[in-house]
Amino acid sequence: MARSSTLLLLASLALLSRHAALANFSFPDCISGPLANNSVCNASLDTDPTTRAKALVSVLTTAEKINATISTSPGVPRLGLSAYEWWNEGLHGIADSPGVTFNSDNASEFGSATSFPQPITMGAAFDDDLIYAVATVVSTEARAFSNNGRAGLDYWTPNINPFRDPRWGRGQETPGEDPFHLSSYVKSLIAGLQGTDDAEGSVNGTYKKVVSTCKHFAGYDVESWDGNYRYQFDASISTQDMVEYYLPSFQACARDAKVGAFMCSYNAVNGVPTCADDWLLNDVLRDHWNWSATTEGWVTSDCDAVQNVFLPHRWADSRAAAAAASLKAGTDLNCGTYYSHHLGEAYDQGLVNDTDLDTALTRLYSSLVRLGFFDSADDQPYRSLGWEDVNTPEAQTLAYLASVEGTVLLKNTNNTLPLTTDQLQGKTVAVLGDWAAATTQMQGSYYGVAPYLNSPLYAVQQLLGSDNVLYSAGPSYGDPTTNSWDTIWEAADAADVLLYFGGIDDSVESEGNDRVSIAWTGAQLDVIGELALSGKPLVVVQMGGGQVDSSPLLANPGVGALLWGGYPGQDGGPAIVDVITGQQAPAGRLPLTQYPAGYIANVSMTDMSLRPDEASGFPGRTYRWYDGEAVFPFGYGLHYTTFTAEMSLSSSTKSFDIASLTSNCTGVEYLDLCPFASVPVTVHNTGNTLSDYVALLFLKGEFGPTPYPLKTLVAYQRAHNISAGSAGTATLNLTLGSLSRVDEDGNRVLYPGSYSLELDIEPGLAVVNFTLTGQETVLDQWPTAPTGRKGSGTTEVGEGYFVGGYGTMNDASGQSYLSS
Amino acid sequence: MARSSTLLLLASLALLSRHAALANFSFPDCISGPLANNSVCNASLDTDPTTRAKALVSVLTTAEKINATISTSPGVPRLGLSAYEWWNEGLHGIADSPGVTFNSDNASEFGSATSFPQPITMGAAFDDDLIYAVATVVSTEARAFSNNGRAGLDYWTPNINPFRDPRWGRGQETPGEDPFHLSSYVKSLIAGLQGTDDAEGSVNGTYKKVVSTCKHFAGYDVESWDGNYRYQFDASISTQDMVEYYLPSFQACARDAKVGAFMCSYNAVNGVPTCADDWLLNDVLRDHWNWSATTEGWVTSDCDAVQNVFLPHRWADSRAAAAAASLKAGTDLNCGTYYSHHLGEAYDQGLVNDTDLDTALTRLYSSLVRLGFFDSADDQPYRSLGWEDVNTPEAQTLAYLASVEGTVLLKNTNNTLPLTTDQLQGKTVAVLGDWAAATTQMQGSYYGVAPYLNSPLYAVQQLLGSDNVLYSAGPSYGDPTTNSWDTIWEAADAADVLLYFGGIDDSVESEGNDRVSIAWTGAQLDVIGELALSGKPLVVVQMGGGQVDSSPLLANPGVGALLWGGYPGQDGGPAIVDVITGQQAPAGRLPLTQYPAGYIANVSMTDMSLRPDEASGFPGRTYRWYDGEAVFPFGYGLHYTTFTAEMSLSSSTKSFDIASLTSNCTGVEYLDLCPFASVPVTVHNTGNTLSDYVALLFLKGEFGPTPYPLKTLVAYQRAHNISAGSAGTATLNLTLGSLSRVDEDGNRVLYPGSYSLELDIEPGLAVVNFTLTGQETVLDQWPTAPTGRKGSGTTEVGEGYFVGGYGTMNDASGQSYLSS
Repeated sequence: MARSSTLLLLASLALLSRHAALANFSFPDCISGPLANNSVCNASLDTDPTTRAKALVSVLTTAEKINATISTSPGVPRLGLSAYEWWNEGLHGIADSPGVTFNSDNASEFGSATSFPQPITMGAAFDDDLIYAVATVVSTEARAFSNNGRAGLDYWTPNINPFRDPRWGRGQETPGEDPFHLSSYVKSLIAGLQGTDDAEGSVNGTYKKVVSTCKHFAGYDVESWDGNYRYQFDASISTQDMVEYYLPSFQACARDAKVGAFMCSYNAVNGVPTCADDWLLNDVLRDHWNWSATTEGWVTSDCDAVQNVFLPHRWADSRAAAAAASLKAGTDLNCGTYYSHHLGEAYDQGLVNDTDLDTALTRLYSSLVRLGFFDSADDQPYRSLGWEDVNTPEAQTLAYLASVEGTVLLKNTNNTLPLTTDQLQGKTVAVLGDWAAATTQMQGSYYGVAPYLNSPLYAVQQLLGSDNVLYSAGPSYGDPTTNSWDTIWEAADAADVLLYFGGIDDSVESEGNDRVSIAWTGAQLDVIGELALSGKPLVVVQMGGGQVDSSPLLANPGVGALLWGGYPGQDGGPAIVDVITGQQAPAGRLPLTQYPAGYIANVSMTDMSLRPDEASGFPGRTYRWYDGEAVFPFGYGLHYTTFTAEMSLSSSTKSFDIASLTSNCTGVEYLDLCPFASVPVTVHNTGNTLSDYVALLFLKGEFGPTPYPLKTLVAYQRAHNISAGSAGTATLNLTLGSLSRVDEDGNRVLYPGSYSLELDIEPGLAVVNFTLTGQETVLDQWPTAPTGRKGSGTTEVGEGYFVGGYGTMNDASGQSYLSS
Repeated sequence: MARSSTLLLLASLALLSRHAALANFSFPDCISGPLANNSVCNASLDTDPTTRAKALVSVLTTAEKINATISTSPGVPRLGLSAYEWWNEGLHGIADSPGVTFNSDNASEFGSATSFPQPITMGAAFDDDLIYAVATVVSTEARAFSNNGRAGLDYWTPNINPFRDPRWGRGQETPGEDPFHLSSYVKSLIAGLQGTDDAEGSVNGTYKKVVSTCKHFAGYDVESWDGNYRYQFDASISTQDMVEYYLPSFQACARDAKVGAFMCSYNAVNGVPTCADDWLLNDVLRDHWNWSATTEGWVTSDCDAVQNVFLPHRWADSRAAAAAASLKAGTDLNCGTYYSHHLGEAYDQGLVNDTDLDTALTRLYSSLVRLGFFDSADDQPYRSLGWEDVNTPEAQTLAYLASVEGTVLLKNTNNTLPLTTDQLQGKTVAVLGDWAAATTQMQGSYYGVAPYLNSPLYAVQQLLGSDNVLYSAGPSYGDPTTNSWDTIWEAADAADVLLYFGGIDDSVESEGNDRVSIAWTGAQLDVIGELALSGKPLVVVQMGGGQVDSSPLLANPGVGALLWGGYPGQDGGPAIVDVITGQQAPAGRLPLTQYPAGYIANVSMTDMSLRPDEASGFPGRTYRWYDGEAVFPFGYGLHYTTFTAEMSLSSSTKSFDIASLTSNCTGVEYLDLCPFASVPVTVHNTGNTLSDYVALLFLKGEFGPTPYPLKTLVAYQRAHNISAGSAGTATLNLTLGSLSRVDEDGNRVLYPGSYSLELDIEPGLAVVNFTLTGQETVLDQWPTAPTGRKGSGTTEVGEGYFVGGYGTMNDASGQSYLSS
């Protein structure tokens, strides 16, 4: 081995500590422990946690520092500094992960926690207040677990990459395809997770509730597709697409929501692995987005993205160089052991020094200071949260409501739905398909132990009594073996009403696993088609995060109704069944485009561009650019009632001078956030059923760089519980940024031109037109990536290596990376 | 439902029978049962089993016939005709499948059976006698299980599609990429499985031992790649490639080995799903290959390939039409229930009649007659096989030897290997990697319960004692999480010798699952690279069926030796470790090309062509056509010794007149099988180690249609146990077919020109040159597919639907398939 004995010692420590960390989480003893007199334990020292963190870092040896740069941090036993596992997950409820340990007796205290729908379903709710409420439950339950020694204080959530390609296996973890939607969603989410400064328990902002981590920064949305593994994929992204599409949600995290942590990703962007990208992590994140103002913000690598910088990216010439480049670029924490193994060597070679280590560790320990890690529990209300705050009735209701709000009605011929409980009395209902009896399936990925998992079958049985319900699983997603279909026919033949729950699930879309088809399987279409011949009421519920092309079901007159349910979480069965029976009214909207199955034939998953290209036949991506016909467009969703609406600009004028608009922004830190207008919308429920209504406001117009997007979502709000015959209101706030476009250099610019605001996805419900006049004005000047850096343009490491792995392991000089 | 009550009854019967078939297999009572007086029970009636089968079929009702067309045949209780499960698997030992039931107490009788290496490993042995011996053990054990009521009499093996694309997930189930190799291999395999007419127990050919099933006919070698699922993939194959590459192994099965059964595949070829392809199943298989002479030959669908004919292929307009078209095309048996569900409807619509059903059932029951199903056990030696014939010491030795023979030495710098047991005494050996402790991993796919599964770790522990062996699993194939690497470093640091077992396994290449990369993972390369820095002897064993690009290991001087072991079966650990220690000498050869990792970047998996295309950058496929540089070529394999060789044509002339050659073929049924020459080879072992030697004979030359293949394997033989200083011999028999080329119309033709025969893969070991003169002469006239048939050329069902699933389910007329 090429490692010094120091490093071997470090390795052993890391091993020991890893086992230690698997035991319960604990706080350091700041009263009588060795650190008691270190300023890090002095809660009254300074409001800037950096001062306290620096005091701790100043007493660490270099070896101790290096050892503390990995996610399973061993702490420093001689100082009484507790081991700390940074890797905690909480995507939609606290989740199994190295730092989170459920009681193995799931019926006992801390044996479970509330499990909400996957983000793709919650995204369909278009309800930021809901997201805040959900996140508040998650952070409360996280603190309760932490106080019991069962969880840490920072959570590696959200996954806020936009859902760019319908095949992406992790699209289910995101709220959808639109960057404005994601930005708005994530601000509410982070506020709920971290606690706002005025949140109960934050002691006037002294304490964060938990730290949230925006991932995967940036351009990460390929798992494995045609030779491109996420660990080696180099995403080629134009500056314009980067700023316009891939980064807004991260800007919202860093600049606006002041998230506590970021995670850099496995992939490279334009030749540079993101964890080694000084421009991305420093120029963009910390400087341009002013994240450095959040002094305790830290960046972790995805697990083991630092290793990837060496292999398979081959961006660094040696293991030590990969570790050093990542640390210096601003990756403060390494999920994995590459830092603990190779930073010592890098240190010996002069590639990193104590200042580099101190910078990283100061951020990390500042974050723990802000989480009250070193402070007395007595002064921290969050530290009093306990098991009685987990799985509260309110939290369970919220999980149910989140699923209801995220359910989308896609087809409802002749008012097939609702099938009221009155109508169902005395009837026999067949509950069919591979989602009919779903339990953990409903949780998707990154989940914990739920207090219960109520399937659709369970819900129908509760409603009608088990004797009136027949059940059969469906044809599985893979093999079309018809032998398993006999039980379907038996159930269907004996029933009066047919409910089919199918689509896709985690077995075909998951981490590491992109889809190769966006069609329903032939087997499922065959079964549904034969069910549709029965003449019995047939409701199909399409499940899974990525969309499947439901046009055959739309076209089939025997399919009366079609719903989409995503991954609806612990109470998904009752939530969807209550929508079917009309006890709840559907008002969710698709947070992504449902493309026709043939769409992917013309679209390489690795083509990161958004705009269509007529020459190559590339049809474009997302509702903003896709110029073909969607099966169901972004924002689609039917109701049980009908609506009319009125909308107007709060201003009486219909023409705005750009210079005047910007001059009114004094005191606004960022021009794009400067208010433009507040658009009140009044929605009249003209039908017979109480219902929510999601007000989606789209901007259209020919202004700024060509090509023009078809339309752009600029605001949304969900109005709740509008009674039949009554009206509800929504207030849609627009900023100058809402009207802006991004130019080819990445600058966000306000352009003169004609603008049109349209409510909802069908034209005609309500429209407001206005013009901007004057000179185009830059709202945000983009910090261009330096030219000539390694990986950009022509580079030492040949482009194309990522396509098929690595040709040979020799670089142009003939030197073997493996023997260097 | 659109099914008649008759059909519902059939469905119920099918269900009942399915459960019945899950119980033990049994023979009908031909002595005192209701069939006793039916001629099917009259063993002395006729040597043609068809006569007896027809007698049985003649007493069946139409409903009984339809019910008998599915793989889980219910039999006919009123006639005492036993239920029979046709689906039995035996790819490399009898395997878990609907018809095969191991004793759940695996330590008891019939709790296990010999588990040989996967075919890809046995293919590397290039030893047809070995294959015959292995197949003889499999059929013996199958009969023993059957006699115990635990297995059927027909086996759905071999998978004899050529391993065309390195990504294919089921390539491991085949002997390799070369059609001649596959043809030669499969003839020995079928002889061993079915028993030759003069085999002990066949009673002068009266009885087949078991029926073998050649699959998947034809053009099947895509699981799921970029929107192409096997269930819907339409392979576009030129006639020339079809005859030259995709069909020879199937011709060998049908025409030459007289296999008892075929399986049609999921995919379509040139627009027609193979199970509905009358031309393929009748014109080619039964007529041109004269398979109809084997009166009891039957074709089963892959499971549920008949359903696929409707959806997702959408080749048939209705379910009934899909079933009818398949039956009439010659798919006699349906794995699945589509026949039992929909043939009744097809019958009512006049799409099939009793003659169609009788044809299929007569074939099936004829097959059972030939298997002695209706005859007294007293007259059938095969019926006396029992548990004492399973897992015999000879069979266990054979499983070990098959693995030894299939092990290939790829690199051996400075004679790193063998590491003799003398050299290893007193040393500590680290056994590392995710294959180090492999057990079921070694079996690959389609396996049963082995009597034992001896891992590499076990073998080294047996050799050196557990105290001298350190073990750590490696970085897994997916996530590169370095946390798991600490145990590797610990073991490696403490050891004197490093053995790394890695590569890929069934988790990345399997049924339904094609690979997206043919590179080693970055994590494994990183670990191996760091191990290579140690200066300790390092041996890497690359496992898995598909090749991974080992060029980084070839280039790395710290990797002393590299072996390939494939999936080595129950005794794979000891076999490979014995090669490492020199107790066995390696002589296996790669049965496929090891391409550089970047190869797949230029090759669509769905491009079925073999020849390179300069214009498009397509580099061609297999050693015959690939014009780039292979990492290791087809046929590559090093030895522990050195060889020289002599070779000559048995004829003294070096020029042959084509007309004379063909006129000498009187009495030879097929011209391509007419003998041309016998080429004796003498091999001198000029080194110090006893070793086998595989004589591979390649043909080169510029004759026939351009482009010319780089070379073509025309014969091989493995010479065994050639002592140091001694000579061994091999006899390489050539036929006129060996010299032929296939023209664009699919005709096999003998062309005038200059021919060169080269021994082994490096030029110079031994070469024979000769010429053919005279007129080109057709050896085999290909039966061209009829033009204008549905699916060929311009067709009613649009091409391209398979790429991304189905656009909508409406055909050009606007009619919905799902409501038809």
